[in-house]
Amino acid sequence: MARLVQKYGGTSVGSLERMRAVAERALRAQREGHEVIVVVSAMSGETNRLLALARQATPTPSERELDVLAATGEQVSAALVAMLIQELGGDAESLLGHQLAIHTDAAFTKARIRSIDSGRLEGGLRAGKITVVAGFQGVDDAGNITTLGRGGSDTTAVALAAATGADVCEIYTDVTGVFTTDPNVCASARKIERISYEEMLELASLGAKVLQIRSVELAMKYAVPVHVRSSFSEEEGTMVVSEEGLEAVVVSGVAYDKAEAKVQLIEVPDRPGLVAEIFGRLAARNVSVDMIIQSSSRDGHTATDVTFTIPKNDLTGSRPLIEAWAREQGVRSVEYDEDIAKVSIVGLGMRCHAGVAAKMFGILASEGINIQAISTSEIKVSCIIAAKYTELAVRALHDGFGLHLPPEPAAPPKASA
Amino acid sequence: MARLVQKYGGTSVGSLERMRAVAERALRAQREGHEVIVVVSAMSGETNRLLALARQATPTPSERELDVLAATGEQVSAALVAMLIQELGGDAESLLGHQLAIHTDAAFTKARIRSIDSGRLEGGLRAGKITVVAGFQGVDDAGNITTLGRGGSDTTAVALAAATGADVCEIYTDVTGVFTTDPNVCASARKIERISYEEMLELASLGAKVLQIRSVELAMKYAVPVHVRSSFSEEEGTMVVSEEGLEAVVVSGVAYDKAEAKVQLIEVPDRPGLVAEIFGRLAARNVSVDMIIQSSSRDGHTATDVTFTIPKNDLTGSRPLIEAWAREQGVRSVEYDEDIAKVSIVGLGMRCHAGVAAKMFGILASEGINIQAISTSEIKVSCIIAAKYTELAVRALHDGFGLHLPPEPAAPPKASA
Repeated sequence: MARLVQKYGGTSVGSLERMRAVAERALRAQREGHEVIVVVSAMSGETNRLLALARQATPTPSERELDVLAATGEQVSAALVAMLIQELGGDAESLLGHQLAIHTDAAFTKARIRSIDSGRLEGGLRAGKITVVAGFQGVDDAGNITTLGRGGSDTTAVALAAATGADVCEIYTDVTGVFTTDPNVCASARKIERISYEEMLELASLGAKVLQIRSVELAMKYAVPVHVRSSFSEEEGTMVVSEEGLEAVVVSGVAYDKAEAKVQLIEVPDRPGLVAEIFGRLAARNVSVDMIIQSSSRDGHTATDVTFTIPKNDLTGSRPLIEAWAREQGVRSVEYDEDIAKVSIVGLGMRCHAGVAAKMFGILASEGINIQAISTSEIKVSCIIAAKYTELAVRALHDGFGLHLPPEPAAPPKASA
Repeated sequence: MARLVQKYGGTSVGSLERMRAVAERALRAQREGHEVIVVVSAMSGETNRLLALARQATPTPSERELDVLAATGEQVSAALVAMLIQELGGDAESLLGHQLAIHTDAAFTKARIRSIDSGRLEGGLRAGKITVVAGFQGVDDAGNITTLGRGGSDTTAVALAAATGADVCEIYTDVTGVFTTDPNVCASARKIERISYEEMLELASLGAKVLQIRSVELAMKYAVPVHVRSSFSEEEGTMVVSEEGLEAVVVSGVAYDKAEAKVQLIEVPDRPGLVAEIFGRLAARNVSVDMIIQSSSRDGHTATDVTFTIPKNDLTGSRPLIEAWAREQGVRSVEYDEDIAKVSIVGLGMRCHAGVAAKMFGILASEGINIQAISTSEIKVSCIIAAKYTELAVRALHDGFGLHLPPEPAAPPKASA
């Protein structure tokens, strides 16, 4: 007997028919002898419908009231799925964020979970009940409804799995698992059987949408095994686990992201602290700067060029601020480029394999793709390229690193020069 | 400065545009110097949409989960109205049943309020805040969401007015007040300026839909003045108040109800307790029997005829039970009639005016309308007639009792023979 948390996303509960399939799957797991906790998202489209209502009401809705509004989406799903489990002969009960209770901080629309009272859940499990938890929501110290941000139901599920010591947290979605890259872009993309939290975290940060970053962090922190799989099939999905026992493949996946824009500051006076100031101003407006490249000042020059990327969504709002600062400081000019993409390779094996970045640059060069900026971490390399080359670059990197081939049988990782 | 509870029904919050008018009205009252608490229903159609989802999920949804589902309707309205008040420059906060908290018993779908914590409301009022309360919902001792039954937002509003000592509870609806009868049936129907709780209670019980019975009972119990008025105009509506200070008019209003069916038990053996038994069986199935007429046994007969009415909705479900009992007990036959209506006259003044019932029978007779059954209370007389005569009867009674005329200037009530 295992204890399972099953989380079903928006498309998995997108209609009553789909919800009935969810109820059947949960009951089947229970009848196989498992203890089952279900976490549901809002029906697909519902959260957007509610937020559109809010935007029609006012361009600047209060975040507290946005959360009261948005939380109804998961509440509706939870009640209906509980009814359907009962209809199929099971014992079920819905629980909302404040009923459980999932205690969070008071950061409306992006709250973080502080603690979970698992008493009521444990009681339900002992009584043979399937508890259907409304995902995405919690309650702050003052009893206000909070929500955990987009994709927050993943976080609810992983947090519940951690709080109840579940054996696995199953994340049901509309794809069959985590792929080596986006199958819509690269036909040879393969489903990954097992991947480490660290790699999953990088992939999620770099544009892969299958899991919310926060939920992966939480899974890693509490060592919750996560099984990403499809609610539309019985196929095994991808296990996200700790790296012990995993073979450290050099490159596990290729990710891409077209949501960033490039800002170039041309001839910034070479004074200490000057560049830090503009990043400070952007941070104060909650604009997150991703890649930063500062060309070293050339001999005889007292100015450098600085390039960085920010989300496209923030570009319009940030331009007046950047330009005012540039004028103040005597920057020669500011240039913007929205036609860029970030392509990245991720793999635990990079830690002990040199030459991975060089191989990546070589692959891109052989396709005639110019690299505009580079950033690296221990287990990833990202390059900014012209947006039009995105798909070409993804396919070239994917197959260039052998991701189209079935994984080799496990062998001890070896260090190479 | 007065303290007001303003309750807005489904049509009053039926669209964002209508909600904006609600926000404006609440703010205007506050700017006139009043303390304002707003109670909202679900947007019109929303509760039916949610209940239809439940019925599609299962023919027998659990009442606990129905309440979780249905409560989202008011939650959405409360969040949006709070946003709109803020958008107009006011300070507002939504509160749900469990946040307030409105404590109820655990009778899902028809819970009764036990107590209200008005602390958070009082704090909001002191801070100049308009609290927007989600109507219709509460929380039981175990933290489960409960709802108060159809029209329950009226009850929420009156209960809040009682708990906070409000000067008046304004019920905003799509009509301008309580009328002497249904204006759709009788063109000479007039809006009543002031009516007693007792009369309002009878009218609500007898088919007038403007206020929910439970809310009138509560208003009477706590002497909360209720102002029924339209959210679509500035016109003064109808004040529902205690009878002291009211002129006791003989007939205040005429009501009708086509929702009942007549059941006739022909030749029931005349044994003590026999008839009580069938009513007990119906009560055990939550079928409420309204009018009961037992013809006295005639000389030399050992059987009587018994006629009663039950809601049409319950007829199909009750027939097997009634017929089985009739067979057991040797009742000769059972007859049903769904083509009936109940017309009623209500008025405090009946207490001290004899001959009111006789006048009613005379008016109906002069129109050629046969009376099939009669029931009376201290302040009302109801007659069962053939359904096809309903409108004719309503108009004849309305004008026959002078309700088409403007009320006479106040004069001391006099007893007459």
